[in-house]
Amino acid sequence: MARLVMKFGGTSVANLDRIRRVAKRVGVEVARGYDVIVVVSAMSGKTNELVGWVGEAGGALHDAREYDAVVSSGENVTAGLLALTLQGNGIDARSWQGWQVPLRTNAAHSSARIAEIPTANLDAKFADGMKVAVVAGFQGISPEGRITTLGRGGSDTTAVAFAAAFGAERCDIYTDVDGVYTTDPRITSKARKLDLIAFEEMLELASLGAKVLQTRSVELAMRYRVRLRVLSSFEEMDENAGTLVCAEEDIVESNVVAGVAFSRDEAKMTLVSVADRPGVSAAIFGPLAEAGVNVDMIVQNIAEDGRTDMTFSLPVDQVSRAQVAMEAAKADGTVNFHDLIADEGVSKVSVVGIGMRSHAGVAARMFKALSDEGVNIKVITTSEIKISVLIDRKYMELAVQALHDAFELEVARA
Amino acid sequence: MARLVMKFGGTSVANLDRIRRVAKRVGVEVARGYDVIVVVSAMSGKTNELVGWVGEAGGALHDAREYDAVVSSGENVTAGLLALTLQGNGIDARSWQGWQVPLRTNAAHSSARIAEIPTANLDAKFADGMKVAVVAGFQGISPEGRITTLGRGGSDTTAVAFAAAFGAERCDIYTDVDGVYTTDPRITSKARKLDLIAFEEMLELASLGAKVLQTRSVELAMRYRVRLRVLSSFEEMDENAGTLVCAEEDIVESNVVAGVAFSRDEAKMTLVSVADRPGVSAAIFGPLAEAGVNVDMIVQNIAEDGRTDMTFSLPVDQVSRAQVAMEAAKADGTVNFHDLIADEGVSKVSVVGIGMRSHAGVAARMFKALSDEGVNIKVITTSEIKISVLIDRKYMELAVQALHDAFELEVARA
Repeated sequence: MARLVMKFGGTSVANLDRIRRVAKRVGVEVARGYDVIVVVSAMSGKTNELVGWVGEAGGALHDAREYDAVVSSGENVTAGLLALTLQGNGIDARSWQGWQVPLRTNAAHSSARIAEIPTANLDAKFADGMKVAVVAGFQGISPEGRITTLGRGGSDTTAVAFAAAFGAERCDIYTDVDGVYTTDPRITSKARKLDLIAFEEMLELASLGAKVLQTRSVELAMRYRVRLRVLSSFEEMDENAGTLVCAEEDIVESNVVAGVAFSRDEAKMTLVSVADRPGVSAAIFGPLAEAGVNVDMIVQNIAEDGRTDMTFSLPVDQVSRAQVAMEAAKADGTVNFHDLIADEGVSKVSVVGIGMRSHAGVAARMFKALSDEGVNIKVITTSEIKISVLIDRKYMELAVQALHDAFELEVARA
Repeated sequence: MARLVMKFGGTSVANLDRIRRVAKRVGVEVARGYDVIVVVSAMSGKTNELVGWVGEAGGALHDAREYDAVVSSGENVTAGLLALTLQGNGIDARSWQGWQVPLRTNAAHSSARIAEIPTANLDAKFADGMKVAVVAGFQGISPEGRITTLGRGGSDTTAVAFAAAFGAERCDIYTDVDGVYTTDPRITSKARKLDLIAFEEMLELASLGAKVLQTRSVELAMRYRVRLRVLSSFEEMDENAGTLVCAEEDIVESNVVAGVAFSRDEAKMTLVSVADRPGVSAAIFGPLAEAGVNVDMIVQNIAEDGRTDMTFSLPVDQVSRAQVAMEAAKADGTVNFHDLIADEGVSKVSVVGIGMRSHAGVAARMFKALSDEGVNIKVITTSEIKISVLIDRKYMELAVQALHDAFELEVARA
């Protein structure tokens, strides 16, 4: 029997009416002949309530093992309620908590990694006639038998891992948007839903702030070649609904650029006149990492007289943390610089597309489009399938619109 | 290290303030040198919310396995939050869900019986320095590895079972009353808190409607000789607080009667002129049991001309169910009777005391006290340590007060 994994997030199971709608969708796939594994999140708001209580009871330095034990309970409730609703519709369904599967993880509580999903228990029940296994997402058990959670958004990762372990035909992620767009429709009405996107593109878009899918779930899907579909749980079901995230070779024709991503609240820091010697990068970025600063783009200017300027970008709310770390590193002689300049008014805009691999001139086309609008570029970084620039925040919307036009993204891939 | 079990009900852990108060009480016992097992209920209101959702999702005929999976989550939340609060007070504590202990039960979902509590997992952690194990009450796992629950009030039973399994010095049941009384203080201001009560007496009182402890928890405590203390979680801690439920031989002197219990909403049914032949009782009470009628007192009048009258009591809200069952039994010839009379206006009043075993005249004293007040007795039943009468409901308070006076219960046992 072909297997299908369906994942429903918190807003899709927010109350019993919505759970009934989810049950109908699951019923349609069962009627199509699938054995279905449904992965559910907690009813929306529940996880936040539980997290709030943990904060009150345990403070900032709470025991992550107890956090996981408390917070995982929200998914257990949804799983049981959906199983009951499916049974009411005449479908042989049962709920599975993480430890019952068991979904084994490492012991990194609150951000655990999946180690293994043995298939024997569910396989035996499917062989017995079970049509739907409703799995509590986001949770597993550690080698010590304690409950773990996978971190926020971990239910997407749970779903992909089940799809990989059980050889599912597809993993459908039902959410509150109807797919992946060429850019945020709030920035330009020309934004268009993509029917197909490559894993690599989706990864770049996810990490660039298009919050449709958790990055780790996309990485996992890419590694195990799980066909991943993003679609809305609030629209009619349709064979071609949503966006299919798939392997590059499944995409026959594509635009050079798949989408324009952006990250609004960035900052740029420059260490002026750093001694340019081996090990200086480690001396700078080691202390920043220890301070929990997420450095993104890094640019080193050409050295003059044995000194150089080092520029990097970071989330704007980490600037003071970075300044403290750098001043401390200067004070204890770890790194030597003349000045530290922070610009808290920048945004990052990126174009992403696997087509760049075979098409030259993408960067030039990007820079010309920005230049035509009078947008000054402060920092540039590139990867094989992505070009990112830092610009003044006030130009962010303008830049996204200009790039969307320049790469003709309102027109579908051939 | 001496072990102590402490159990806190839903109102005692209703919010984080109360959980902090519970943590303080636990801390006092840890400071006294105990290794403590704390059994907690769900925060008050939570279980009802979950039960409501299950009813909405699954209807009346829901899958009890899913009911258990959903409803048990409330206790898991409390256990984690209390463990965190204890840790914040510098106490080495961790939460234990039923499957982690594991508390093994049979497969009778929603009213499971405890089969076994292996001590190895908790013992190992106590040996490692754990001072408090916070156990989620009311839950266990079936032989198939599904979550079970023990039925309403099952956290009391969980606590007693842990006390028995771990050889605890005592099992303290913290609740919203400060002990067991000679009768309900709302009926007479002369009601007095008992310092000691025998298991057998507590069992009779519990099953007669004094809702302080779940009957099964008392049975279990009696069987395994667990010293059980009932006390309030809202009053100051005191070595002699509450009521100690203990073995009969631990009670040196006692009043003849320990307390007066009552059950307000009873009914009396009489089958008039039943053929008096072997098997007639089975023919009557078999169909009633199948219809889910909880028959309590049974009296058979002296037979005349081969016919007899059969009278029994039952909860008033089961009268129509009983009538339907009896008319059906008459129609299919299972039982033959002339008439069926129901009296829905009666209450049961009982005096309970192990002292009755060695004191004659208790019944006579009871009947005289009622007669002096003009209270007519409709049905009488007796056991070794209890005498119960059915009377008109309007006399119930009067009868309780009269019996409380007659047996001088406002005066403490010597």
